[in-house]
Amino acid sequence: MDFAVDERTRELTARARTFLEEHVLPAEPVLEAQLAADPDRWGGWPVIADLQGRARAQGLWNLFLPGEHGGAGLTGEHGGAGLTNLQYAPIAEITGWSPRLAPVAFNCAAPDTGNMEVLNDFGTEEQKSRWLEPLLRAEIRSSFCMTEPDVASSDATNIGTRIRRDGDSYVISGRKWWSTGAMNPDAAIFLVMGKTDSDADRHRQQSMILVPRDTPGVRVVRPLSVFGYTDRDHGGHAEIAFDDVRVPAGNLIGEEGSGFAIAQARLGPGRIHHCMRAIGMGERALWLIRERANQRHAFGRALADQGVVREWAAEARIQLEALRLLVLKTAWLMDTVGNRKAMTEIQAIKIAVPRAMQTILDRAIQLYGGAGVSGDTPLAELYAGIRSLRIADGPDEVHLSSLGRAELRG
Amino acid sequence: MDFAVDERTRELTARARTFLEEHVLPAEPVLEAQLAADPDRWGGWPVIADLQGRARAQGLWNLFLPGEHGGAGLTGEHGGAGLTNLQYAPIAEITGWSPRLAPVAFNCAAPDTGNMEVLNDFGTEEQKSRWLEPLLRAEIRSSFCMTEPDVASSDATNIGTRIRRDGDSYVISGRKWWSTGAMNPDAAIFLVMGKTDSDADRHRQQSMILVPRDTPGVRVVRPLSVFGYTDRDHGGHAEIAFDDVRVPAGNLIGEEGSGFAIAQARLGPGRIHHCMRAIGMGERALWLIRERANQRHAFGRALADQGVVREWAAEARIQLEALRLLVLKTAWLMDTVGNRKAMTEIQAIKIAVPRAMQTILDRAIQLYGGAGVSGDTPLAELYAGIRSLRIADGPDEVHLSSLGRAELRG
Amino acid sequence: MDFAVDERTRELTARARTFLEEHVLPAEPVLEAQLAADPDRWGGWPVIADLQGRARAQGLWNLFLPGEHGGAGLTGEHGGAGLTNLQYAPIAEITGWSPRLAPVAFNCAAPDTGNMEVLNDFGTEEQKSRWLEPLLRAEIRSSFCMTEPDVASSDATNIGTRIRRDGDSYVISGRKWWSTGAMNPDAAIFLVMGKTDSDADRHRQQSMILVPRDTPGVRVVRPLSVFGYTDRDHGGHAEIAFDDVRVPAGNLIGEEGSGFAIAQARLGPGRIHHCMRAIGMGERALWLIRERANQRHAFGRALADQGVVREWAAEARIQLEALRLLVLKTAWLMDTVGNRKAMTEIQAIKIAVPRAMQTILDRAIQLYGGAGVSGDTPLAELYAGIRSLRIADGPDEVHLSSLGRAELRG
Amino acid sequence: MDFAVDERTRELTARARTFLEEHVLPAEPVLEAQLAADPDRWGGWPVIADLQGRARAQGLWNLFLPGEHGGAGLTGEHGGAGLTNLQYAPIAEITGWSPRLAPVAFNCAAPDTGNMEVLNDFGTEEQKSRWLEPLLRAEIRSSFCMTEPDVASSDATNIGTRIRRDGDSYVISGRKWWSTGAMNPDAAIFLVMGKTDSDADRHRQQSMILVPRDTPGVRVVRPLSVFGYTDRDHGGHAEIAFDDVRVPAGNLIGEEGSGFAIAQARLGPGRIHHCMRAIGMGERALWLIRERANQRHAFGRALADQGVVREWAAEARIQLEALRLLVLKTAWLMDTVGNRKAMTEIQAIKIAVPRAMQTILDRAIQLYGGAGVSGDTPLAELYAGIRSLRIADGPDEVHLSSLGRAELRG
Repeated sequence: MDFAVDERTRELTARARTFLEEHVLPAEPVLEAQLAADPDRWGGWPVIADLQGRARAQGLWNLFLPGEHGGAGLTGEHGGAGLTNLQYAPIAEITGWSPRLAPVAFNCAAPDTGNMEVLNDFGTEEQKSRWLEPLLRAEIRSSFCMTEPDVASSDATNIGTRIRRDGDSYVISGRKWWSTGAMNPDAAIFLVMGKTDSDADRHRQQSMILVPRDTPGVRVVRPLSVFGYTDRDHGGHAEIAFDDVRVPAGNLIGEEGSGFAIAQARLGPGRIHHCMRAIGMGERALWLIRERANQRHAFGRALADQGVVREWAAEARIQLEALRLLVLKTAWLMDTVGNRKAMTEIQAIKIAVPRAMQTILDRAIQLYGGAGVSGDTPLAELYAGIRSLRIADGPDEVHLSSLGRAELRG
Repeated sequence: MDFAVDERTRELTARARTFLEEHVLPAEPVLEAQLAADPDRWGGWPVIADLQGRARAQGLWNLFLPGEHGGAGLTGEHGGAGLTNLQYAPIAEITGWSPRLAPVAFNCAAPDTGNMEVLNDFGTEEQKSRWLEPLLRAEIRSSFCMTEPDVASSDATNIGTRIRRDGDSYVISGRKWWSTGAMNPDAAIFLVMGKTDSDADRHRQQSMILVPRDTPGVRVVRPLSVFGYTDRDHGGHAEIAFDDVRVPAGNLIGEEGSGFAIAQARLGPGRIHHCMRAIGMGERALWLIRERANQRHAFGRALADQGVVREWAAEARIQLEALRLLVLKTAWLMDTVGNRKAMTEIQAIKIAVPRAMQTILDRAIQLYGGAGVSGDTPLAELYAGIRSLRIADGPDEVHLSSLGRAELRG
Repeated sequence: MDFAVDERTRELTARARTFLEEHVLPAEPVLEAQLAADPDRWGGWPVIADLQGRARAQGLWNLFLPGEHGGAGLTGEHGGAGLTNLQYAPIAEITGWSPRLAPVAFNCAAPDTGNMEVLNDFGTEEQKSRWLEPLLRAEIRSSFCMTEPDVASSDATNIGTRIRRDGDSYVISGRKWWSTGAMNPDAAIFLVMGKTDSDADRHRQQSMILVPRDTPGVRVVRPLSVFGYTDRDHGGHAEIAFDDVRVPAGNLIGEEGSGFAIAQARLGPGRIHHCMRAIGMGERALWLIRERANQRHAFGRALADQGVVREWAAEARIQLEALRLLVLKTAWLMDTVGNRKAMTEIQAIKIAVPRAMQTILDRAIQLYGGAGVSGDTPLAELYAGIRSLRIADGPDEVHLSSLGRAELRG
Repeated sequence: MDFAVDERTRELTARARTFLEEHVLPAEPVLEAQLAADPDRWGGWPVIADLQGRARAQGLWNLFLPGEHGGAGLTGEHGGAGLTNLQYAPIAEITGWSPRLAPVAFNCAAPDTGNMEVLNDFGTEEQKSRWLEPLLRAEIRSSFCMTEPDVASSDATNIGTRIRRDGDSYVISGRKWWSTGAMNPDAAIFLVMGKTDSDADRHRQQSMILVPRDTPGVRVVRPLSVFGYTDRDHGGHAEIAFDDVRVPAGNLIGEEGSGFAIAQARLGPGRIHHCMRAIGMGERALWLIRERANQRHAFGRALADQGVVREWAAEARIQLEALRLLVLKTAWLMDTVGNRKAMTEIQAIKIAVPRAMQTILDRAIQLYGGAGVSGDTPLAELYAGIRSLRIADGPDEVHLSSLGRAELRG
């Protein structure tokens, strides 16, 4: 066992860190101003295009993706093969410090990352050339349409959307929500999950299909908010109606009945990426705690000299260290024994990380008082993001129950 | 000791409950529509004026205020003297079910309630006739300007705003924020806390003064948000600059140096009213938990049949019962031994109630998933409101430290 | 609603308090010495007989019992009728300060209290004269034999002990444990729960029967410990084998099939008495926290000046106040609407009180360090007692589930 | 970074695991019987001598110690050099499954381990030959005398024991408690901490000295209990009076004034060893949870099918995985950058591990009910041991404050 970090990771992490400090953090107020100036806009922010150009030039691009497309492979300038999950982790963590800007700057933002992985792993050559290539170049964005408003979507057998074969086409009918990014008109392609066969085995009923945004019958109904935030910076979260939407049969990803398996394959990396970034969000919160504790005085002493604040800082540090290691070990397992065999660990971090970060953020907010709940610090918005992670991809309780059942089985 | 509720309280509570169900809850989507239709507006919502007319006609008006003005005293129709704190508590709790509409419908909304109490208890006849009377009739609204952006305001000696005597005037200079309601142009009068004498004893340095909104030098700088919510329904939360604002000397409330005492007198009822309403918010959350648990199924069972959900419901019920009793006993103490002697209990509920309600709301959100964090349920917005209570009027930690010190002193 | 305490309660509480301070607390080291001097003895401690004599002389006797036998009725000297549950509560709380000595001194110790209630409410005249009278005079003690080692006893249908009618006798076979007090040879009578009819309705299968200790076939197998404590002061906790134990048919309490109902009737008061005393244990822990915090210095300051210790004291105070009120309201409900209708509240305090007291005790132990875990303070033993309350009469989780189900049903 | 375990560790861990299952766990009831048969005895248990013989024969001996004496070095049979901390960790974890027997069986039990380290690192040749050699062969045992009854010992400047130079001797006066193992007459040597110079710098006032048990003036006053346990299996915890105890000057360890530094050097390994074993205690508790959950039924279902029990198992698994990694990384840091630079991590695990294990044990106890609090499972005794870890070597709060201060300093 060896906890030392390899040279390539160290170098890329340092580069990402510098980029964060020199370009991303200073861009936060710029984004804020652009959002304020254009209150009906959901995408195409100049500040993001600018950051993407700089990041790509530095090889900080598509690092989430293993294999030839991964790393800085696309540019050819910065070496070839993709990173392992273990190598990617500290870079993703750094992007968590500024989750509205850094992931997208590196073309490592959800849901595009998961969608690119699906296309990379399961797409036909035509699907890849049509959708994966422009996504890898950040020319378009995408959305993932899985959750439905009327059912407990963590139970995949509940899915109500239907995908019906009709000659050379598939016809999709149903309603989705929490399709992240879909309010952004640049989100050109939707990956839609639905049932092709309600009579098949539990996990063979579902299929996944590509639906271009401009297909007749696709209707973006409304944006959803997370606490009071619409998340316009990254295309928000949409409710979308699919009314007899007809697409070519070639748009099916994989084969009929493989939808559940593809979704599962997508979820593993998606969850660990969320956790990696969440650790970074926690680190930023702790950094902000430190700032505040040293600057603010009350009742004759700096907050940093008050026992309760020290306990908060200590607890935060302990949680961050322990959970980062659990994330890293999970990444290592995915690299060495595969995503499927790392499922227990993936569930563990999916449960543990957001919860712990929520506590750290809550305390940071408490320390900042009015500035903490408002837009004067990033804390409240980070909180809303972390809080919704405990729901996304199935609520904690579903994962706890599953993990507990496995554990009790022994 | 007797836990039975008296007849007057029982009758008024039932009336308030009926009003809530028949008028207030159905008005929530109406308010939502009016907010959406007029995105730059901060007050004067027709739905509120309508509810106020109905509530006043039923004697559900100014019930927060003891004495002749209290209860339905103003209308003369529904009996005279005000309620005790103990009698008011269950009515305030009911208004907590719909905190954006019910308190204001009954003219029992913060910060007007606290401001009316100050004017009622400490105002001159002229101040009362000029500002209290229209507030009691809900013809105007008001704001309370105490917290400052640059200092830990829970320590009153930190206050930076200056109130300087200059002939027959006072001149106010400083910056305030979290002046709730002040974005609403109907908020005609501001109660401003500042220092008249930095050399006086710790708690004799501050004074409170009335500043009409339209006084030259008053500048509403910007609205603040709470977890993304601007709270436009009740006038939001403003940052306000006071640049050499000159008002007549007669605008001073009480005497020079009495500001801290007046603020303290205002805080007691303010805090308990917040707690009463918070209990109602918790009850609504638990009601929503019940609804969801019975309607939603996952993995073959209603959520109501799952052990974890049952535990949440049980824990919520226990917390609500225990903390309601603590609030009621505190109200009884305020009624029988006075607000000052009830300070320890007021601190206790100020700490305990919001925290417990936050947990209940967090679990309700968890149960509702995407609907919980979005605007499709009132939960996320209730959460944001409850969360900010843990900061308002001093963070929990200040109260815990004070309460603990008193306890350890014995 | 009125939180004022009535005169009789106030007077008795003051008397009990004085007795605690003057007689009980000073007797604690005496008991300790007697225990150490006689390591194989399980009852008949001189210090207890002495305290009982004094308490009875002051009318602090059998106060737990309503009706003619209750209060100091037996002596005839101190007025007649028993106390209400509401009146008894603060007295029981005081006995919680010294749970090994004060309850027994007042003849208000479990399990005798519950057993006396059963005999009082369901016993025949002969059963009363034979067993209740000497128990009321503290001439004998008793045990309650319900829990079994081999099954989850919180589910009454699991009970394995059989009570078989045979002519004029009943024959009992089975094994019980956690029969508190039964190691004490003075425990002359056992109330035994068993099944008379396994085919009856779920809650009509069980019966309760009186088994004198010296009946052939009764075998006290061994004592059980609670976190290393054998509780020899009050007769410990025994495992008991009943091998074809034959008693006269007249020993049945109530009728066949009424055992579950009798047990339930016994549980309500039993649980609330435990909670009342537990509040007193929490108060003693907080008192000890105060002592330590003011006496002990570390790193240049008294512990009382350290933020974390203050938070502990504040949290303890809040919990004690809120939960005491919940206990009192439950007592009032038992007095006014009856034990059965107060079942939800009884469950609530059964869950909430021991848990909160456990936290207070844990922190008190932490503050005392080595003295806290050892016998140099009463804290560790109080902790063990409180901890086992969370298991006694069904684990918290059974009550949470039941309470939650009721709540979700609405 | 690499989470794979090296071959030597894997092999030794497997051997230790087999030894645990084949020899140690079956010996637990044997120890119990020997303890019961000889209630006044504090050491010299035959079952331990037997296990030691077997373990030593298998090279499972002194593995805690790095360098030539470490590993199985003493026997010469099983290879030479000691293990790294990282390699020792999983073996220590296994011994935590049976903390009364396994550590001592491997001659890896506190406080001997720490005392051997001190002698190994700081002892003179004579001290080593006189005391270290027999300790390495388990011919004698030892005790560490640091904590004092009258002061907050986590603040080293509080120490009251005096060590005074007098000619060729040192004279020791003072009172110690929690001298673990000292009730065992085989504990032949005491390492005593005291002040040689109260005027020196804060951390240069203390010295450490060797005091043979049989030196005149040494008086073992009494045993202390932990919850109700006297821990007779490993020599208990003694209060010891040192009244003008005279020892040769050559008994000083290191030089005058180096006591604090030596104690600190001793604490690092001591703390991590405690944490490693504590992880094993948590694993055993989770194993017991699994057993119970599958065997016990209530209300028609196995406990393993109840949501709350699953959550407990899942939470336990998550905590164990995350904290084990933190312990391992800390071990790796000690190996690579040294104990001093790993101080923050050592503090982190010292805080986090016992606390988390306490929760796991509490839930295991809850699941076992009466069997959980009694001696019928090892849970209550494990709980008492883990609970006291939160106090030993300074209470959590001291470490949290120190860690928090460092974190806030940045």
